[in-house]
Amino acid sequence: MVNKNREIPPTTISRLPLYLRTLTNLKEKGVSYIPSHDLAEKAGSNAAQLRKDLSYLGEFGTRGVGYNIKQLHFQISRCLGLTKKYKIAIIGMGKLGPALKDYQGFKESGFEISAVFDSDPSKIGKKINKLIIEDVKNLKEVIRKKNIEIGIITTPAEAAQGVAETMVEGGISAILNFAPVYVEVSKKIVVRQVDLSNELQILSFYLSRK
Amino acid sequence: MVNKNREIPPTTISRLPLYLRTLTNLKEKGVSYIPSHDLAEKAGSNAAQLRKDLSYLGEFGTRGVGYNIKQLHFQISRCLGLTKKYKIAIIGMGKLGPALKDYQGFKESGFEISAVFDSDPSKIGKKINKLIIEDVKNLKEVIRKKNIEIGIITTPAEAAQGVAETMVEGGISAILNFAPVYVEVSKKIVVRQVDLSNELQILSFYLSRK
Repeated sequence: MVNKNREIPPTTISRLPLYLRTLTNLKEKGVSYIPSHDLAEKAGSNAAQLRKDLSYLGEFGTRGVGYNIKQLHFQISRCLGLTKKYKIAIIGMGKLGPALKDYQGFKESGFEISAVFDSDPSKIGKKINKLIIEDVKNLKEVIRKKNIEIGIITTPAEAAQGVAETMVEGGISAILNFAPVYVEVSKKIVVRQVDLSNELQILSFYLSRK
Repeated sequence: MVNKNREIPPTTISRLPLYLRTLTNLKEKGVSYIPSHDLAEKAGSNAAQLRKDLSYLGEFGTRGVGYNIKQLHFQISRCLGLTKKYKIAIIGMGKLGPALKDYQGFKESGFEISAVFDSDPSKIGKKINKLIIEDVKNLKEVIRKKNIEIGIITTPAEAAQGVAETMVEGGISAILNFAPVYVEVSKKIVVRQVDLSNELQILSFYLSRK
């Protein structure tokens, strides 16, 4: 059983999706069990770290056999709250917004987009793969009416903070921000800032030391 | 001076872009100095962690004044190797590829895309914002000829491993993989797997515990 009162460190939480992705790949290949050091290596961690991370979720693994992949996959999914479906909106239908709307990885993880928005009159009202692009002026009302819980910001940097504040007024619970600027809202809202150039910078670090 | 022989832990490296982004925002606002706990909080870290991370780069900060933003920005950029320009190719011109090609955050961090590829005959030869989409059949030769060092994979999952192997044959040094499947190549190549659904999973975790 997952103990909801036991505080899981943020670094452990950020590694759980990596373990889950690895387990999904193994499941698809028809593998049933995996030793902890193999799972750790494939997920970019190490065995001690993996065991410590999983200790927050309960007891797993059998000495000499390793982890039951299907069982561990379920436990991690449940811990991440993936058994529930969240309603998600994307704001900003430039290039990244539509790409995220149809991102294969979102669908595979069970995430579906319920509404998309833009401020450009030439885009509003157009259909984008089954969803009609709505006017960002109606953002607050649509969030309320559709009970949208997660907002993804893919606007230009200068629009991001305003969009974030409007979403909070509408009652959103969490924000994923792809605009290359930090948004600041009430600490009650869960915010993740995603900067895709971070990953290139990390590559750059390793390349510069080669 | 950055001591190249002192091993910087991967967790520190992954936080450097977050500090850099925060410093960039502060620079743009015209701020000159920032106390360590303010910088740490804005970057989603804490003061002790920040000081430990920066200790790998040398000595910074003045008691009572904080960090000189411009100076620290330069030091982190240099540590990340951002003073050098890398040649980058994107493979897969579906939706995510073109979005990344014109991603504002890449440009702001000084990353520029030198070549783009696809396997779809209806896309090959078309211009996408100044670059012509090249045939993925020529991937190896183009990487060699243009001295491309970083390859970004935005193909469907099933094509990713083959593309990664071809790039390695062409002499690529680093791979950023956005396809929702792990690619495995020689350990000499720096590989970062980016799964955009990880961030939604982390949000899901916090929402499920609210």
